[in-house]
Amino acid sequence: MSDRLVVIGGDAAGMSAASQARRLKDASELAIVVFERSRFTSYSACGIPYWVGGDVTERDALIARTPAEHRSRDIDLRLRTEVTEIDVAGSRVRARDLESGTESWTGYDKLVIATGARPIRPPLPGIDAAGVHGVQTLDDGQALIDTLDHTEGKRAVVVGAGYIGVEMAEALIQRGYDVTMVHRGPQPMSTMDPDMGALVRDAMCGMGIKVFGNAEVTELRTDEQGRVSAVVTDSAEYPADVVVLGIGVRPDTELARAAGLPLGEYGGLLTDLAMRVRGHENIWAGGDCVEVLDLVSGRERHIALGTHANKHGQIIGANVGGGYATFPGVVGTAVSKVCDLEVARTGLREKDARASGLQFVAVTIESTSRAGYYPDAATMTVKMIAERHTGRLLGVQIVGREGAGKRVDIAAVALTAHLTVDQMTALDLGYAPPFSPVWDPVLVAARKAVTAVRERR
Amino acid sequence: MSDRLVVIGGDAAGMSAASQARRLKDASELAIVVFERSRFTSYSACGIPYWVGGDVTERDALIARTPAEHRSRDIDLRLRTEVTEIDVAGSRVRARDLESGTESWTGYDKLVIATGARPIRPPLPGIDAAGVHGVQTLDDGQALIDTLDHTEGKRAVVVGAGYIGVEMAEALIQRGYDVTMVHRGPQPMSTMDPDMGALVRDAMCGMGIKVFGNAEVTELRTDEQGRVSAVVTDSAEYPADVVVLGIGVRPDTELARAAGLPLGEYGGLLTDLAMRVRGHENIWAGGDCVEVLDLVSGRERHIALGTHANKHGQIIGANVGGGYATFPGVVGTAVSKVCDLEVARTGLREKDARASGLQFVAVTIESTSRAGYYPDAATMTVKMIAERHTGRLLGVQIVGREGAGKRVDIAAVALTAHLTVDQMTALDLGYAPPFSPVWDPVLVAARKAVTAVRERR
Repeated sequence: MSDRLVVIGGDAAGMSAASQARRLKDASELAIVVFERSRFTSYSACGIPYWVGGDVTERDALIARTPAEHRSRDIDLRLRTEVTEIDVAGSRVRARDLESGTESWTGYDKLVIATGARPIRPPLPGIDAAGVHGVQTLDDGQALIDTLDHTEGKRAVVVGAGYIGVEMAEALIQRGYDVTMVHRGPQPMSTMDPDMGALVRDAMCGMGIKVFGNAEVTELRTDEQGRVSAVVTDSAEYPADVVVLGIGVRPDTELARAAGLPLGEYGGLLTDLAMRVRGHENIWAGGDCVEVLDLVSGRERHIALGTHANKHGQIIGANVGGGYATFPGVVGTAVSKVCDLEVARTGLREKDARASGLQFVAVTIESTSRAGYYPDAATMTVKMIAERHTGRLLGVQIVGREGAGKRVDIAAVALTAHLTVDQMTALDLGYAPPFSPVWDPVLVAARKAVTAVRERR
Repeated sequence: MSDRLVVIGGDAAGMSAASQARRLKDASELAIVVFERSRFTSYSACGIPYWVGGDVTERDALIARTPAEHRSRDIDLRLRTEVTEIDVAGSRVRARDLESGTESWTGYDKLVIATGARPIRPPLPGIDAAGVHGVQTLDDGQALIDTLDHTEGKRAVVVGAGYIGVEMAEALIQRGYDVTMVHRGPQPMSTMDPDMGALVRDAMCGMGIKVFGNAEVTELRTDEQGRVSAVVTDSAEYPADVVVLGIGVRPDTELARAAGLPLGEYGGLLTDLAMRVRGHENIWAGGDCVEVLDLVSGRERHIALGTHANKHGQIIGANVGGGYATFPGVVGTAVSKVCDLEVARTGLREKDARASGLQFVAVTIESTSRAGYYPDAATMTVKMIAERHTGRLLGVQIVGREGAGKRVDIAAVALTAHLTVDQMTALDLGYAPPFSPVWDPVLVAARKAVTAVRERR
């Protein structure tokens, strides 16, 4: 008799796990059942801002693999079906068919939890009004597009200034909106240090986006038809024809919590390196619903990012399918853009380093993406953080134009390999005038960091 | 009494060394004399193709620091002065003033040799004819521009298909020339494996550049006025109004050889890690005239590249100035472009790996520079070479459009840190749809390499 694998969640992590397991074991050895709440599988939520903005014209372009494709590989995929309970002792899950409302139990030999993350939606007056949109799922994206297509006014307010917030600001600008952004922190992009966030704010203001920080939203005001008409904060009121929420996400782990599975300080599932839920031989978890080890600080973090979800899925699938693979952890790399401004970070911010008890130096340099004399050489600011005494690289943040964003990969690899800033000054990076100054900006930052480390012996 | 530092060569390595030494020791402690054959200092030879092509409009834009700037820092800079002999036993150099022809001896306490490289110019009939140009120095660049400005015909032949050759092909295309490239190897870009070079050839052909490989130039035919009229190879004859030579360079070490200093198998000076010439306490050398340690193969190589020259100069200057710095070696990173095609490599080619006695697997994948659904997602081919058994990364070659070239830096850092391809699959690289597919192309290649390594246990 074959084993049965049950997967909860049919997006990146869940479907990657199912597909990889199927590659290793055919249907006679392993039955695979996937429960997915929505009508879609394997889609790129990260692509939604570009669909809204018009760079991507078709919703289906965001779908990497359709339900039909998965089913053709002997995966029993149940769409519009929500798992409502995990019975760990009984090795079974209860699922509700969202169309018919019927519920039934399905037993498993192996279980994969890939329930993703849920957008934060504070219980504010007006939060559910027409014209207020999140952008977490394809249905969210479609709803926002429908609103934009049918709204007369052109005033958009984006609440939140993280990756989704800034990407949505760009999308709305591209659709001809007058965009206001309100956010809690002192600067946008709180994943960066405030000095680097200030560069993002200045650039966004230069693009005509009005950015208001240190603002706590208290209400979403509505008109007589119940449509949103303004965003009210503790200090001002911003008229709005449409509001986009990009406040962040939390691991969607209510099921796991109810089942008594181990959760971390951010509410994400805790796993071992093989992505197996701690203490549970036959349950794995991956994607936006888990916490991951930060290799720089040595602590668990929650990072909702498609690239990690895909890796987790592959690893889980390999292990479930009888192979062997592990996920060593992350260094916290992220890259984004607002119009032509590229913003990237990896490793620890000053704040993170402090919270980890690390003493450090931080330096910032300005350089250019290409040789200074080459056309379109654009300014780039690189901030580098290194540990005191040892000089070990702790983090890098980059803000600039074309060529800035992916430069962070140099630091991501250096962090993974525990290089010191001294070692980084000698890195043999690609040089030619169209690609870099003779000293790559990352090397310039490393040289300044070396000096700072020496001065703070 | 102060020490005297003599520097032979006033381009990247020499002037960086002089400047760095001056930062550490003022004129009362260290006199600095620099002899430079040309009229220029600290210029970017790598920028010449972009000046010829018109992307850079002014010659002086290629000059990072002028003679006057150097002199203002108490550096005794003697332009148009050629060193003709190094007397190691007597700690002095003989120099000839190229204007007056007078020669004189200058004693040194410390000597830096930064004589650079000389272009290879085979003794072919017609090699010195009008219309035949090298592009090593600013004067060469000016001479070529003068020829292009005053030549009626629009047929250019580039001899050689290395970095300079392909960059000059682009420059000539930009100036409206009909460009033919003839070269010795089976494919252009012999710094890549032939399968990757073939992609470059195909792309160049698509740009209208006629590329002929396996061709040995036997003669440069001239007309009655003594101007070049055709390039003759062992198999064909190509009409030419102008010919650009990009055959490669050799370390310019005649002086060093005559002085009995140690040279390596490529004719470059051999130094220790502090860039001190082996066996000579008070002589340093850096830039295009030295051989450097290849950290992947463990052997010496000759690589003429401005970025290394600048690093060498800094390190020599620190050591000469009483500080301490070392150059650990290179991994062989290089990046270039022909029109919108980006070409990059780092580490070992298959041929190099074989020559080093390494057993390896090689894999090639195709992916895109951005998420597949994002506008302008361009195809990118990544070849990865990994050691058998250990899975250690040995080399990466990339050919693609925007975003391809600098991706090689990921591999450059991984090589420096001796990562295995297994470790590389878990790298936390920057992901967002405008910057990368959810699996970065380098990760896709690493995953395929892991499979190949396992299959060849």
